[in-house]
Amino acid sequence: SRSINLAVIPGDGIGQEVVAQGLKVLSAVLPQDVKLETTEFDFGARRYHATGETLTDADLDALKRHDAILLGAIGDPSVPSGVLERGFLLKLRFAFDHHVNLRPSKLLPGVATPLAGQPEIDFVVVREGTEGPYTGNGGTIRKGTPHEVATEVSVNTAFGVERVVRDAFARAQARPRKKLTLVHKNNVLTFAGHLWTNIFNKVAEEFPEVTIDYIHVDAATIYLVTDPGRFDVIVTDNLFGDIITDLAAAVSGGIGVAASGNINPSGEFPSMFEPVHGSAPDIAGQGKADPSATVLSVALLLRHLGYETEAARIEEAVSADLAERVGQPARTTDEIGDALAVRVAG
Amino acid sequence: SRSINLAVIPGDGIGQEVVAQGLKVLSAVLPQDVKLETTEFDFGARRYHATGETLTDADLDALKRHDAILLGAIGDPSVPSGVLERGFLLKLRFAFDHHVNLRPSKLLPGVATPLAGQPEIDFVVVREGTEGPYTGNGGTIRKGTPHEVATEVSVNTAFGVERVVRDAFARAQARPRKKLTLVHKNNVLTFAGHLWTNIFNKVAEEFPEVTIDYIHVDAATIYLVTDPGRFDVIVTDNLFGDIITDLAAAVSGGIGVAASGNINPSGEFPSMFEPVHGSAPDIAGQGKADPSATVLSVALLLRHLGYETEAARIEEAVSADLAERVGQPARTTDEIGDALAVRVAG
Ligand SMILES: CC(C)[C@H](C(=O)O)[C@@H](O)C(=O)O
Ligand SMILES: CC(C)[C@H](C(=O)O)[C@@H](O)C(=O)O
Repeated sequence: SRSINLAVIPGDGIGQEVVAQGLKVLSAVLPQDVKLETTEFDFGARRYHATGETLTDADLDALKRHDAILLGAIGDPSVPSGVLERGFLLKLRFAFDHHVNLRPSKLLPGVATPLAGQPEIDFVVVREGTEGPYTGNGGTIRKGTPHEVATEVSVNTAFGVERVVRDAFARAQARPRKKLTLVHKNNVLTFAGHLWTNIFNKVAEEFPEVTIDYIHVDAATIYLVTDPGRFDVIVTDNLFGDIITDLAAAVSGGIGVAASGNINPSGEFPSMFEPVHGSAPDIAGQGKADPSATVLSVALLLRHLGYETEAARIEEAVSADLAERVGQPARTTDEIGDALAVRVAG
Repeated sequence: SRSINLAVIPGDGIGQEVVAQGLKVLSAVLPQDVKLETTEFDFGARRYHATGETLTDADLDALKRHDAILLGAIGDPSVPSGVLERGFLLKLRFAFDHHVNLRPSKLLPGVATPLAGQPEIDFVVVREGTEGPYTGNGGTIRKGTPHEVATEVSVNTAFGVERVVRDAFARAQARPRKKLTLVHKNNVLTFAGHLWTNIFNKVAEEFPEVTIDYIHVDAATIYLVTDPGRFDVIVTDNLFGDIITDLAAAVSGGIGVAASGNINPSGEFPSMFEPVHGSAPDIAGQGKADPSATVLSVALLLRHLGYETEAARIEEAVSADLAERVGQPARTTDEIGDALAVRVAG
């Protein structure tokens, strides 16, 4: 009999509320013969305040013994900026070599967008997750003086770029439009830019059916609001991916519906799935958070573990639920979770 | 009697066409007693192909002897990516210490925006122009091998950050809403992020009337499409500024109307004014380019040189012209320039 051994990290703010709905829908969608085991971890602001710890070696060992990780949100204004981001979120992505950060953007029927004319939007961003300006390389000298110098080093390796570019080509190849766009800033960041561009063009030779395209990151933000339909699959570095996926989420229904996967394709470490939104402390505990992004992250998790039918069932349920919301009074986090659980079970 | 000694760099592609209109409007708006002298420089792709040169020390000496520089656009697909950007545009910004890169965004009446509901947009981005990831620091080892490593180093100094932050506070102080937003990514780029944040908070004490605000760059792209009205003045680093000003231009009427100034506030070197758009080789020579962005850059140039009345006259003319375009057949680059020249003279 099959089983899923899931690590659950509700985290801070609305993380608790939305993860509860994700688990509700997950239980409802799984076939009877699949045994779901969950272990909850208390990472986040409370644990940091209580113990000073963000993520220890023992924590990583414990997390490693799971098939996948579901995360709500980590972050709270009571913790200095950077402590939980670098000490937990990024530490985990790096420790588990989550080099494919997958962020689909699809404007579902009936969903509001800030763009005029309800354009068609259906693309996936493959963001590199373990290199670039996110490595923590750099430093500060003469801190706090008028002569302070602070550096940030973007580190890019052929190994790291090639594996994520190859993953993105394979994803483009599997989609009907078969189009892959590299987003970078190779006219200014020429060292990293040439590495990315050369590897992109080299790997392209192995995928003759995939149409390729290059756009500077600044121009990409223009296309995301004037012609988002031009994108099918985008591959980009860690920082550019961070920036354009927030914009992509905003134009395709908002961060209330943006899901993501931090994927270790080899399976050596468990992959982690999380909504793109943060902990939103301003609305935490009020039942106002939209759990759709977390539920869609559960769909990505199921697809990653080979449960394609169940993943698709969840995506259809969220799409139908969003379409039905139009003109209706707002529902609570829990009510939306219940409605989705009913849909996926039915 | 007064005089303006202007260096003119039409450059590549549509640069020639739009600069001609900028000069036309400049001549029309200047009072009789102001003597306008212009010297044209042939920088860009043709000169690079003919001589291999992008910008020599002698060129810099010649440019330095002017009150200001008007630039059309530099860049052509026949030149490898990065050669003219690093060898001309960035070289000039660094050589002339253009540390305040000023980019206003105002959605003028009647102008189309990709955003639904015609929001009010009126803010200015103060982009740092001489530091950050634009310094060209970094390098490549084992180039072209599977073990290549390419780095890009973002360099941030207290000196460089403080002067641009101070400039942005002064601009915010002079505007009715008196609000300044720092855009960075201080939760991930903690070395540079803390430098920026600490200096921002320190300088804020000298400007008690200015309301301050901090937003991560990824979230800033969301607000630019969902609530652009929240911004008044933004200060940010070189790369984040590059990215968000293209998005800002897109939502506030497109890069056809986005002007910029590369300013050396001390006056030690001439400042340079240029449209945000590039050389657009696909439409070059066809009279299709909108010269408004260049004409608005001329307004920024005049304001910088102390001709406030004339700057405002140009801005009013462009605004009126754009409002009149609605529903009218498209005009040529030249026709728009003529119409604007008539308006500012009248
Ligand atoms: C919270 C932060 C570390 C994170 C990132 O920058 O990657 C977030 O913005 C995201 O996109 O997942
Ligand atoms: C062409 C390029 C070097 C430049 C930049 O990145 O600054 C451009 O995008 C701009 O915004 O002026």
